[in-house]
Amino acid sequence: MNFASDNSVGASPRILQALLDANAGAAAAYGADPWSARAGALLAETFEADCAVWLVATGTAANALALATLVPPYGAAFCHADAHVSEDECGAPEMFTGGAKIVGLPGRDGKLTPAALAAGLARYPKGAVKSVQPAAISISQATECGTLYSRAEVAALAAAAKAAGLRVHMDGARFSNAIAAGAGTPAELTWKAGVDVLTLGATKDGALACEAIVVFDRALAPALDFARKRAGHTLSKGRLLGAQMCAWLEGGHWLELARRANAAAARLAAGLAAIPGVELAWPAQANEIFPVLPKAKVAALRAAGAVFYDWTAAAIPARIAEETGRQTIRLVTSFATEDAEIDRFLALAGAP
Amino acid sequence: MNFASDNSVGASPRILQALLDANAGAAAAYGADPWSARAGALLAETFEADCAVWLVATGTAANALALATLVPPYGAAFCHADAHVSEDECGAPEMFTGGAKIVGLPGRDGKLTPAALAAGLARYPKGAVKSVQPAAISISQATECGTLYSRAEVAALAAAAKAAGLRVHMDGARFSNAIAAGAGTPAELTWKAGVDVLTLGATKDGALACEAIVVFDRALAPALDFARKRAGHTLSKGRLLGAQMCAWLEGGHWLELARRANAAAARLAAGLAAIPGVELAWPAQANEIFPVLPKAKVAALRAAGAVFYDWTAAAIPARIAEETGRQTIRLVTSFATEDAEIDRFLALAGAP
Amino acid sequence: MNFASDNSVGASPRILQALLDANAGAAAAYGADPWSARAGALLAETFEADCAVWLVATGTAANALALATLVPPYGAAFCHADAHVSEDECGAPEMFTGGAKIVGLPGRDGKLTPAALAAGLARYPKGAVKSVQPAAISISQATECGTLYSRAEVAALAAAAKAAGLRVHMDGARFSNAIAAGAGTPAELTWKAGVDVLTLGATKDGALACEAIVVFDRALAPALDFARKRAGHTLSKGRLLGAQMCAWLEGGHWLELARRANAAAARLAAGLAAIPGVELAWPAQANEIFPVLPKAKVAALRAAGAVFYDWTAAAIPARIAEETGRQTIRLVTSFATEDAEIDRFLALAGAP
Amino acid sequence: MNFASDNSVGASPRILQALLDANAGAAAAYGADPWSARAGALLAETFEADCAVWLVATGTAANALALATLVPPYGAAFCHADAHVSEDECGAPEMFTGGAKIVGLPGRDGKLTPAALAAGLARYPKGAVKSVQPAAISISQATECGTLYSRAEVAALAAAAKAAGLRVHMDGARFSNAIAAGAGTPAELTWKAGVDVLTLGATKDGALACEAIVVFDRALAPALDFARKRAGHTLSKGRLLGAQMCAWLEGGHWLELARRANAAAARLAAGLAAIPGVELAWPAQANEIFPVLPKAKVAALRAAGAVFYDWTAAAIPARIAEETGRQTIRLVTSFATEDAEIDRFLALAGAP
Repeated sequence: MNFASDNSVGASPRILQALLDANAGAAAAYGADPWSARAGALLAETFEADCAVWLVATGTAANALALATLVPPYGAAFCHADAHVSEDECGAPEMFTGGAKIVGLPGRDGKLTPAALAAGLARYPKGAVKSVQPAAISISQATECGTLYSRAEVAALAAAAKAAGLRVHMDGARFSNAIAAGAGTPAELTWKAGVDVLTLGATKDGALACEAIVVFDRALAPALDFARKRAGHTLSKGRLLGAQMCAWLEGGHWLELARRANAAAARLAAGLAAIPGVELAWPAQANEIFPVLPKAKVAALRAAGAVFYDWTAAAIPARIAEETGRQTIRLVTSFATEDAEIDRFLALAGAP
Repeated sequence: MNFASDNSVGASPRILQALLDANAGAAAAYGADPWSARAGALLAETFEADCAVWLVATGTAANALALATLVPPYGAAFCHADAHVSEDECGAPEMFTGGAKIVGLPGRDGKLTPAALAAGLARYPKGAVKSVQPAAISISQATECGTLYSRAEVAALAAAAKAAGLRVHMDGARFSNAIAAGAGTPAELTWKAGVDVLTLGATKDGALACEAIVVFDRALAPALDFARKRAGHTLSKGRLLGAQMCAWLEGGHWLELARRANAAAARLAAGLAAIPGVELAWPAQANEIFPVLPKAKVAALRAAGAVFYDWTAAAIPARIAEETGRQTIRLVTSFATEDAEIDRFLALAGAP
Repeated sequence: MNFASDNSVGASPRILQALLDANAGAAAAYGADPWSARAGALLAETFEADCAVWLVATGTAANALALATLVPPYGAAFCHADAHVSEDECGAPEMFTGGAKIVGLPGRDGKLTPAALAAGLARYPKGAVKSVQPAAISISQATECGTLYSRAEVAALAAAAKAAGLRVHMDGARFSNAIAAGAGTPAELTWKAGVDVLTLGATKDGALACEAIVVFDRALAPALDFARKRAGHTLSKGRLLGAQMCAWLEGGHWLELARRANAAAARLAAGLAAIPGVELAWPAQANEIFPVLPKAKVAALRAAGAVFYDWTAAAIPARIAEETGRQTIRLVTSFATEDAEIDRFLALAGAP
Repeated sequence: MNFASDNSVGASPRILQALLDANAGAAAAYGADPWSARAGALLAETFEADCAVWLVATGTAANALALATLVPPYGAAFCHADAHVSEDECGAPEMFTGGAKIVGLPGRDGKLTPAALAAGLARYPKGAVKSVQPAAISISQATECGTLYSRAEVAALAAAAKAAGLRVHMDGARFSNAIAAGAGTPAELTWKAGVDVLTLGATKDGALACEAIVVFDRALAPALDFARKRAGHTLSKGRLLGAQMCAWLEGGHWLELARRANAAAARLAAGLAAIPGVELAWPAQANEIFPVLPKAKVAALRAAGAVFYDWTAAAIPARIAEETGRQTIRLVTSFATEDAEIDRFLALAGAP
């Protein structure tokens, strides 16, 4: 019953096997290996785009490098108040951008909205020398609340951003969960909707350590080779990243893994919804669910061995946040989550 | 005949197997896994020290994080003019320190000397507000010239550094080659000789992507957890790093791999030394050798499929650098280098 | 009728004269001149403290250097959502700290509160590696809303900060206005209440360009000499700063100037309060007032030559911010504001 | 007998008077005042160019902001090994560029040469990901050795830089001394010879604190408004800078002041040259001279009240640097240096 995170488990067997297969022989270092090249080609195919790709080992690195491509040191990036880039990366975007401001804005269900963006833009007027200069938005797909932006929502935000001269970054640490949930095709949810740079996470979806920075407008990233190297994120044995990404994408493995995680979350969500006194803080649309449970039940679940985090977030509705008898928790499922552990958790949660 | 680098090959079978073995089941993320804990314990045992350890995926990250621990933004670190931290990391130490100055100093055989250090210290007087403030030295073991510092040389440098209030960093990307060559024990060559922080590389010696920052004085690194996270170098599935480091150290595997690489280099060096008209730019003491060859021979070797780099470096003696008929090249051997490829290379090099 | 800012006017005649008087002869450069030394002594006397002092030419530099002394790159500083350090310095604190997070928190009348601080602390838990680490609070005295913290309010905030291991910075760009308004003695409002570092502004209160970083705990700022130099803020002819600060402090000139500015603001505030349909967004306690006026009246005042800014701020009560017929404006008075221009403004504002 | 620096004295009376004259009345803040505007126009006229201009209070700020405009964080700037930007600004260029590498190169008489530049370029190959990327050269006019680049020398360096895709920065802390010495017109020595950005110093030549960043290609500096503000270098009462620059330029005051300083240096140099046993380390071409004197004489001069620095520099010829009986010192003259103090110094220096 480990629902702490989708990074609590190892890699899928197929990805591990790919590492074994890629081990033999000499190869050029620093990302010039054939696996990395093939990963780039597979991403181009997957996204139906002539995109430029850089592979790195962590999502924090991918996000920070992506934002540093879009935001100057005197710039600002707008995101939801609960965004990973703002709250969970120990200031990595600030470090990589040379001190830009990551500005969290409010929004229901973990989503940035055009209205919130407009308010943010009003706060930092273009050309006002005393103000950091808005340069980008960053949206998470799936969101930190386990919800999904629709294609129309992404497009509306990107249009609002571009009208103000801003670039659009998508933090896709759980992008595969969004695709697997049927939110659209990879192209539809990114460049066709106005996304300039995507950070695409494989780690939480079955890889060991592999993320891609996918740049749809090649002109945006003339210096990413240097920025990645300088940040220590250019692996010498680049096959480690390339082989993972290839195996993840080939034959739709990434979506198969994500579908398993999503299905597990749906089973959990459905089971919890049927328990009196339990509600979900936000709709369960991907592989994270946020039930609100009586505190005694939370303690009982932990005592029985369940692993998960208590959750606080700006997006938690005030009605729920102010409750003293119940606690919001986060449950994350992965490709490796088993029905048996879900059912055991549900039985414990539903016990009187 | 790939002598481009010791990072051209994959991992040793034993290390790969360790990754497979570590894959099952859930584990705490971000380095709190049991493999990472065990790696820390093994390093403490190996170095006979109560050291603090952080694992990362690249040597550039390890070096830059280590230097950022020792050098403030207004500080300077002295190293040899050819040091990797100065010349080959695209400014990573500058980025991680917040803009410190990495000052290269001259020295025979790729070695920093107390005399060169004294000259560097005179250039940036302690307390002179206009001057960056000397804060550390960084020495590479093995050096970028394939030579080794003796224990006495390390101790003399560390003593000179400490007399001036500086800390001592060792870039041990090829530290295992130094130990395998009999330069001393891990403890003797580091903290016993005055080294404060070591970056210990496993990647070039049989791992896929694994380096350790080993801090001998725990008081020096109160913030490395945050610095590593903020740089995007805290892997979520920390077992990837922990399992590699454990397998590398256990049963002396690291030294067995390094001994193989050193032996291959010795075979190459001996063979080349026997060829008339060929000399070595520096003594071959670890797993890198730098022969000076007639240019026609260099071209012939490449034409026959040998892979290696032409080499330029501040430490190349003027007598050699000024030659127009010969070229210095770099040959690096690894645990996987085979006698057959060495012998074929020697045959080609020795052909009339 | 220029109420744009207290930096719209030049220097007081006495300060100008001091520049003339300090011009003759040779003096040591870079702040080692006798005027700078005397300024330090006068500040120590004024604050009844053995403080360390650095003079710079701008408030942005003083604030950014002060915060960089207290907050590491992976740290966070909490301030009010409208704080100058967060909103009006184009990211200077982010630049000088190496990318720390300046976190704006809500609060009535422009004031940070212990409750808001507690919420901020909960958001970035001490020791949680994914979170920037709270390191300081920064409070503005007078606030950006023209209000004053009482001694008890400063002490309560400082106590809450210190209980959490945070340092306390005070942005005193208008500190003299607070003292002149009778809020307490310089010592009472700073170190006696728990302030660690004050940035004390003379520029808005009659100097040409002079601010002091006053560090009450000398151990906090071992490197400020280097940080100031490295930021280009160590003037070679330091007498420019030293002479201003001396003249500003000597004989209570600073308070005399601030009293004039405060009196002008009081006259303006009283006059406006007497006009039907006009209210003040916040109590007028120093030399800034924020009347809410019918939009037609705002336009008429501008047409008649009055100079001032429309004002938006997080602290504007929702009731006022949502109005469509009225506009909040900011009026700032200085030592040079004349009764005649105030009265003319009031006559125009009160005209039917 | 103060020859410590040209920043040891105050301002010229005419510049002081300009500050008095500029003090009255209200003006827009942050550089939007009429004096700053007029300074821009005067600089455009002086340089016969449609240049963009930013005024700041220190040379370190001007240099660091200028370099940050030309060099990305992963970039390198080449300069002479003794350049102020490399050795005397406590790492300011590193801070402002976000950690670029300032690479000192050897050269006679304090001058960068095309040959040294070529060697530097070879060390950091364009496109090699491991290498910082050469982005600019920075040359000092007058040099740190008191010598002058001829127009042809500047043009040759700029041509070599541009052939390699580099931009050209000139550190003109003593540019006026070069012009006053007849090295060419302001236009000839800058943009006509290929200089992209000049930092023009008034402080050492009679101002109190005023330097201009003069950008000849406006496209180069789209963000300097923000960069200056963010560094705390946008003075609120911008008239302080604008009025100084206007008075400095008007009526050729700047050249009159520089001619006085140069003449004083020439008198000193001629007198010293006539003393047996004294030589100059480099030709005296501006207002700094570097005599090599018997150590006993150096001590005697100090005992008699003369103020100056002992000098060490990479450019000091080995023949001189290795001497043990003599010491190189630096003597700097200013507009305020009097013949009497020169003659007294010479008498002491020439005494047996």
